[in-house]
Amino acid sequence: MIHQLTLSDVLAEHARSRPQVTAVVDGEVRLTYPELDERVTRLANALAARGVTAGERVLWLGRNAHAVLELLLASSRLGAIFCPANWRQSADELAFVLDDLAPKVVVWERSEAAAPLSGDGWILAGADYEAFLAGGSAEAVPEPTGDTAPGGDTVPAGDTVPGGDAASAGDAAPVLALYTAAFDGRPNAALLSSAALVAHSASLLVVRQMEPGFTFLNNGPLFHVGTMMFCLATFQIGGTNVFTPAFDAEEVCRLIDAEKVTQAFLFGQMIDAVVATNAGGKYDLSSLRFISHSDEWDAMTTVDDSPWCRSKMGGYGQTEVGGMLTFLGLAPGAAGFAGRPSPLVQVRLLDDSGAEVPPGEAGEICARGKSIFSGYFNRPELNAARTRGGWHHTGDLGRREPDGTITFIGPRLRMIKSGNENVYPAEVERALKIHPAVADAAVIGVPDERWHQAVKAVVVLRDGQAASEEEIVEHVKGTLASYKKPRHVVFAESIPKKGFTPDYDALDAAHGGGNYPGS
Amino acid sequence: MIHQLTLSDVLAEHARSRPQVTAVVDGEVRLTYPELDERVTRLANALAARGVTAGERVLWLGRNAHAVLELLLASSRLGAIFCPANWRQSADELAFVLDDLAPKVVVWERSEAAAPLSGDGWILAGADYEAFLAGGSAEAVPEPTGDTAPGGDTVPAGDTVPGGDAASAGDAAPVLALYTAAFDGRPNAALLSSAALVAHSASLLVVRQMEPGFTFLNNGPLFHVGTMMFCLATFQIGGTNVFTPAFDAEEVCRLIDAEKVTQAFLFGQMIDAVVATNAGGKYDLSSLRFISHSDEWDAMTTVDDSPWCRSKMGGYGQTEVGGMLTFLGLAPGAAGFAGRPSPLVQVRLLDDSGAEVPPGEAGEICARGKSIFSGYFNRPELNAARTRGGWHHTGDLGRREPDGTITFIGPRLRMIKSGNENVYPAEVERALKIHPAVADAAVIGVPDERWHQAVKAVVVLRDGQAASEEEIVEHVKGTLASYKKPRHVVFAESIPKKGFTPDYDALDAAHGGGNYPGS
Repeated sequence: MIHQLTLSDVLAEHARSRPQVTAVVDGEVRLTYPELDERVTRLANALAARGVTAGERVLWLGRNAHAVLELLLASSRLGAIFCPANWRQSADELAFVLDDLAPKVVVWERSEAAAPLSGDGWILAGADYEAFLAGGSAEAVPEPTGDTAPGGDTVPAGDTVPGGDAASAGDAAPVLALYTAAFDGRPNAALLSSAALVAHSASLLVVRQMEPGFTFLNNGPLFHVGTMMFCLATFQIGGTNVFTPAFDAEEVCRLIDAEKVTQAFLFGQMIDAVVATNAGGKYDLSSLRFISHSDEWDAMTTVDDSPWCRSKMGGYGQTEVGGMLTFLGLAPGAAGFAGRPSPLVQVRLLDDSGAEVPPGEAGEICARGKSIFSGYFNRPELNAARTRGGWHHTGDLGRREPDGTITFIGPRLRMIKSGNENVYPAEVERALKIHPAVADAAVIGVPDERWHQAVKAVVVLRDGQAASEEEIVEHVKGTLASYKKPRHVVFAESIPKKGFTPDYDALDAAHGGGNYPGS
Repeated sequence: MIHQLTLSDVLAEHARSRPQVTAVVDGEVRLTYPELDERVTRLANALAARGVTAGERVLWLGRNAHAVLELLLASSRLGAIFCPANWRQSADELAFVLDDLAPKVVVWERSEAAAPLSGDGWILAGADYEAFLAGGSAEAVPEPTGDTAPGGDTVPAGDTVPGGDAASAGDAAPVLALYTAAFDGRPNAALLSSAALVAHSASLLVVRQMEPGFTFLNNGPLFHVGTMMFCLATFQIGGTNVFTPAFDAEEVCRLIDAEKVTQAFLFGQMIDAVVATNAGGKYDLSSLRFISHSDEWDAMTTVDDSPWCRSKMGGYGQTEVGGMLTFLGLAPGAAGFAGRPSPLVQVRLLDDSGAEVPPGEAGEICARGKSIFSGYFNRPELNAARTRGGWHHTGDLGRREPDGTITFIGPRLRMIKSGNENVYPAEVERALKIHPAVADAAVIGVPDERWHQAVKAVVVLRDGQAASEEEIVEHVKGTLASYKKPRHVVFAESIPKKGFTPDYDALDAAHGGGNYPGS
């Protein structure tokens, strides 16, 4: 027990240490930490009465609301798993999630996609949720199984990758499930433990230099780790989370002014929209301590000098590492734009055999450490593959630069084997796209008598630009090791895509791809 | 494996992420992180050849040197336990430590106290240490037992309090032993795991807002957690540790200037000495970003605005919690001068039955969380007592103020039971000492027919000051609950002391103390 710290524990401490601090603002709702703590206890008891025990799942299907944080903390209090689902999904996609996660309780906002799926155990957000919560007892929730599995036996905490069972307990038990965008095939629910989330928050506290009083405006989607990670770090330091259903420039301005918001989930065009909305200076946005963006923005807000803001928020991350794995802010003047690892993780660039590749060579970004996830819910085979050799395999390619910093190359979707050398299409594609005449490019492997496979580039030229096959090959040779250069270049009108990535099956079919290792 | 992060792992990452960063400066020695990593590997292999396996102890007996960090990291690489012992101790005290810890290897600087104790396995710091290290292989050290105990069985990681065996492994295994000042009786070696040290470093990184490039001058004693915790946090963020044998104002000035030191172990009279030494402005100390102290000091250095420096470094801590448990910097404008807990721990004020006392009442400061120690080496009974109810009992008294912040009252050495109420001498003594006529005071319990025990105050008045018994009692009544006021007051010339605390046995004998609960 002594070394445990669940999200529920953090709340219990804040209720004592910060009796007068506002934990949550959502429309008319304002809750201090003791008030939030009491509501979470009632909610946990109400969920328990519906059969939510350790390892069971609770689903939220709606826009941002303080109920998201309450359901997460109540799940932590019970040792259960909370999933804020993407409410923008289609009915088919939602049906898949419901079948996959089999939640005991769903709290939902009425929507076209969700309505036909609703049934037993579904609670409408708003008045029904309030009544459900109010019906729960305010008595202290018994601590969940602690360091013992539901069966009563002691299990090792920390290193178990559960495949649907609550195989680990205490703060190593999964508490948050976030579905990750699948490049290929069905989505998977990444499970994050309290220990991982607390560690990830600590790394954000360090890099963003967050302090008590930090006020975060949750205007990005909470089913995405990018917003959730700042919500949790704000919670961890005992700050204030302000919730708004979605981005609306006027409402964002009003809330920053009214709640003295320190940071919001804003970038690019959202910032431009805020600047345009507040051109007349109607709202005081000076409480916002954030990145530099434009002269108008910088004049309205306070440009922050923390490593996070200074570095334009760069780094490499994914849901499976709790959010960020590396930070540009930890590598001032870095060669690699992903920067350096968080102080709580290790990173290795590994080849297919699990051996480390030397600096300058592309390898899969692999990680160990305090913020790494606990595996995907109910995906034992995928979990075994992603954790082989005791390292979390991100599925992404990267490279160490001479200064030790990391460059993110792209998703490691495929590998070509040419003359016993590994060639990752993403790396060659990245080199091709640097050429000024190239608008888009994809790389496949074609059978080759001498080399087993040869690299073939499918290139789309920019309108009005020209480049020869030789010129393209020479360009890649100037950037990468010679064996990675294309032996064949074909020009095409467009690259077929699956989501954001090339459709390699279609490309293989169209351009003679084959002989891939393992095929 | 995936969630582990030992100190050895942190070094392995830095060697990759920071190939050009200086890890260590010590006299003529300058080591980059890869150089430090290679030396630590050689040292670990050399120690292994001397029989240092997981759980074995390695002792350093000398002043500050980079060898301290190397021996700690090499011990982590082996799963062993490193102890930097107090080299100022007498031969008798050293003999006790050697007998208690039974180290396999001792690295020492020749001293009067240590010389008669030296024997097999003792290596002289300097040339002998260098030769020993150089004799170790540069081959990678096999990872220690990971998540399995030496016997090969899987053990629960994280929550085991070892009593001399390596009962837990991975980053939950003890790696650092620091002897703690015993108020009463023999000293004990507090065991800190990599997980606890890494977590504590994270809390310091947050509160001190440490960044890469942070350069810490180790001029305080490394056998004390106050210096060690900053050495380790600097290591964690990939900064530079500068070592100097001990405080010397001129040398401190020279090193701050030459190494662009960010922070040193300086306070009070040490700062005054630095100011006097550098009155002529011989050295540029502007790289130091530290606390405000005096006009001269503030002009020489850069006053830092991090919560740590802003708060005059206040807080409550002890070796057993890794250093700091609470930080004044996390509680701007706090009522309690110990501030609020680190974001990685929970604190409870508990009475003797293990129940939480309400705000405003004194209770024992108890803690759980990521940075708490693993127990004392070879003290199973003490460990059981200190961890009862699943909380680490600090042995100190504190109180929650209405704003949730914590006030440290004093060591909980004794308890008086009066009319079924608990009265802690330290709390009454603190109230007595606020009286302007009181120079010193101690409180004991004397047998009482009606109340079982009654509170008796032994008071030393200031020279030339007077106060009646009634006045003293009324003063305490105005500060504390009525049942805590002394029923008897005696005036004395002085309070007998054991170290810094009253000698209660002597006071009982002199003033009729007795009937203590449990006696």
